[in-house]
Amino acid sequence: MKQIKGGVTAAKGYEAASTAAGIKYKDRTDMALIYSQAPCTAAGTFTTNVVKAAPVKWDRQVIESGSPVRAVVVNSGIANACTGEEGFGYCRDTAEAAAKALNIPAEGVVMGSTGVIGMQLPIEKLKKGIEALAGKKNVSIESGTEAAKAIMTTDTCEKELAVEIGVGGKTVTIGGMAKGSGMIHPNMCTMLAFITTDAVIGREALQKALSEDVADTYNMISVDGDTSTNDTVLLLANGLAENPEIIYGSEDYKKFSEALHTVNEYLAKKIAGDGEGATALFEVKAVGCESTEQAKTLAKAVVCSNLTKTAIAGHDANWGRILCAMGYSGAQFDPEKVDLFFESRAGKIQIIENGTAVDYSEEEATRILSQPEVTAIADIKLGSKTAVAWGCDLTHGYIDINADYRS
Amino acid sequence: MKQIKGGVTAAKGYEAASTAAGIKYKDRTDMALIYSQAPCTAAGTFTTNVVKAAPVKWDRQVIESGSPVRAVVVNSGIANACTGEEGFGYCRDTAEAAAKALNIPAEGVVMGSTGVIGMQLPIEKLKKGIEALAGKKNVSIESGTEAAKAIMTTDTCEKELAVEIGVGGKTVTIGGMAKGSGMIHPNMCTMLAFITTDAVIGREALQKALSEDVADTYNMISVDGDTSTNDTVLLLANGLAENPEIIYGSEDYKKFSEALHTVNEYLAKKIAGDGEGATALFEVKAVGCESTEQAKTLAKAVVCSNLTKTAIAGHDANWGRILCAMGYSGAQFDPEKVDLFFESRAGKIQIIENGTAVDYSEEEATRILSQPEVTAIADIKLGSKTAVAWGCDLTHGYIDINADYRS
Repeated sequence: MKQIKGGVTAAKGYEAASTAAGIKYKDRTDMALIYSQAPCTAAGTFTTNVVKAAPVKWDRQVIESGSPVRAVVVNSGIANACTGEEGFGYCRDTAEAAAKALNIPAEGVVMGSTGVIGMQLPIEKLKKGIEALAGKKNVSIESGTEAAKAIMTTDTCEKELAVEIGVGGKTVTIGGMAKGSGMIHPNMCTMLAFITTDAVIGREALQKALSEDVADTYNMISVDGDTSTNDTVLLLANGLAENPEIIYGSEDYKKFSEALHTVNEYLAKKIAGDGEGATALFEVKAVGCESTEQAKTLAKAVVCSNLTKTAIAGHDANWGRILCAMGYSGAQFDPEKVDLFFESRAGKIQIIENGTAVDYSEEEATRILSQPEVTAIADIKLGSKTAVAWGCDLTHGYIDINADYRS
Repeated sequence: MKQIKGGVTAAKGYEAASTAAGIKYKDRTDMALIYSQAPCTAAGTFTTNVVKAAPVKWDRQVIESGSPVRAVVVNSGIANACTGEEGFGYCRDTAEAAAKALNIPAEGVVMGSTGVIGMQLPIEKLKKGIEALAGKKNVSIESGTEAAKAIMTTDTCEKELAVEIGVGGKTVTIGGMAKGSGMIHPNMCTMLAFITTDAVIGREALQKALSEDVADTYNMISVDGDTSTNDTVLLLANGLAENPEIIYGSEDYKKFSEALHTVNEYLAKKIAGDGEGATALFEVKAVGCESTEQAKTLAKAVVCSNLTKTAIAGHDANWGRILCAMGYSGAQFDPEKVDLFFESRAGKIQIIENGTAVDYSEEEATRILSQPEVTAIADIKLGSKTAVAWGCDLTHGYIDINADYRS
């Protein structure tokens, strides 16, 4: 596997574009298009929130129908959630406008929206935006990056990655982009992530590869514990790599899954580390667990704890809060067996042995916790299973952003 | 039922005291004593956190043994949690010191600790504190208030209430005190709350009255989603009111339970409204529900949402976040049936009808949301059950307090 430049336009036959449609923001792009020169097999995972945004409902229909996908239209600024029949109608309008502008079937258009809940989309602006996107789309790496920028809301940087693998003598590329920042506590999948590949792979194998990996990547991050109404991960495969078909369970499938995992894990970590107001990526590893489920429950409880997250913001080795969060997670374990370590580029330090504090240096701990990426490792010494979760610190920035997000 | 002055010393035969033992704070009281002139029947509910503080373990033993309780010793500053055998030994030392100073059996002493997790108690300071408390204890209302102050950590005000009811021609009094502020997301019970009554009531009826009410009061509040290692509610009944025994299920039991509920609900709301950094009490009522469980799940998800809480801090009617939180709560409902209202002393306003926004005035909504007590009412129109949960807004103050709590 080799990391290469770019994102959604890295794989063969994908074009992208962005435009400033004036949906909500001034002076910035707020619409993105991904277009495939060939029909794509498509897989998707969506929010488990009972309140589902209109584009989530639309995309599920398309994915479940098995229609080949040709284009993804994304807007930022307005989430098109809690918008009733009117909002769903705008999804149909969007698909039809894209179909016309791109000369493709409307049932081959999927979409994503992110931003304020409850406002209706200014559909005429969107239609004009789609025309602009259709006129500008191209295969350059830069157009992929610009698309990744256009889907940002409170994100501070675009998030994209691409990797290459060899399959049957052919080069298969997987590239993706994502946006996150707030209302991030994915369940089934995250905010918005769009992955493109030129692999030849069947629909079922593609969906399995995505669903299995989402559980270990996007579903293991949390910024604020709020599962969005719009969470969507879409994975498109247009087959232009001309590799022998990747069959579920084969060695090639394993290789493809690993490459997909690299892209998903990178984007998921980027979303966590770029959480609203965040100054640090906070990684938690639960090791020595009896089951993967137990490990995931423990790791996720720690990254979700407001108290732990504010301690990380303060570079404070307040390990009691970590043990406390593990304790209320719902997972059973023996608190008096737990070992706890902090680790970062600045070193590694043991804080707890068998549930009580060792004689560690607070100064050393603070030095380790002052890095932009910080890991806590909890060993519960009951087995050999592990899990990793990612979150971020909770800072004044989060309050600033969210106490007055709409205005 | 009549509200009267005071807290834990309001009922007959209870004395209280506070002292500055120098456990962690400078220049403030940090130990409290509640003493009953007669042996008490005792009931208790405790944290469900797997990581249980030493005093929780001690108190459970005493309550389960059925030993009559004579005294409660509480310290703030250090939680005596994650302190292993050494920490549990200090509970025994505390009980023995109190037994000696008060001339009562050690198995009649219960205790509570609150503060930093992981530090060991300075037991010699505690012992001296206990001697001071024994010398100062008295029945005055003021001593009860001083005790309520001594158990505070990041609380900004003491929390106490007392009420009177008539039972068989006798006056029965129930009074209580509590502390909260951070690490508040009780499960089974809250932080520390101590309720005293002079009622004659059997142990089983007393425990049932407490357990049943905790589910609707302390368990319905959340400040930060973190269930503490130390959550404890103790209810003592010394029988000095000389009423005919209150029998489980009787009319008197109902009256007693209602009075207890008044005290518990008041203290629970006080804890929520005085959450770390809070500027507003945030009350959420779920109405029109199919079951009480569904109503509780919906109401609690909303008060726990960081995004909703920051919106309240910004006096922003960001109702999408409320619907979003209900959607990921785990409860099933039809988002397109939901009506939502905001209410406070400044008035009441409808925001959503059948899942989408009505044409409300943002200015009016902001005016209503700018009060120190704000209520959101969500009607899911599926039945007749209701539930209320209490939380607070999430502000810069929370970050300030917790990013550097230990130093």
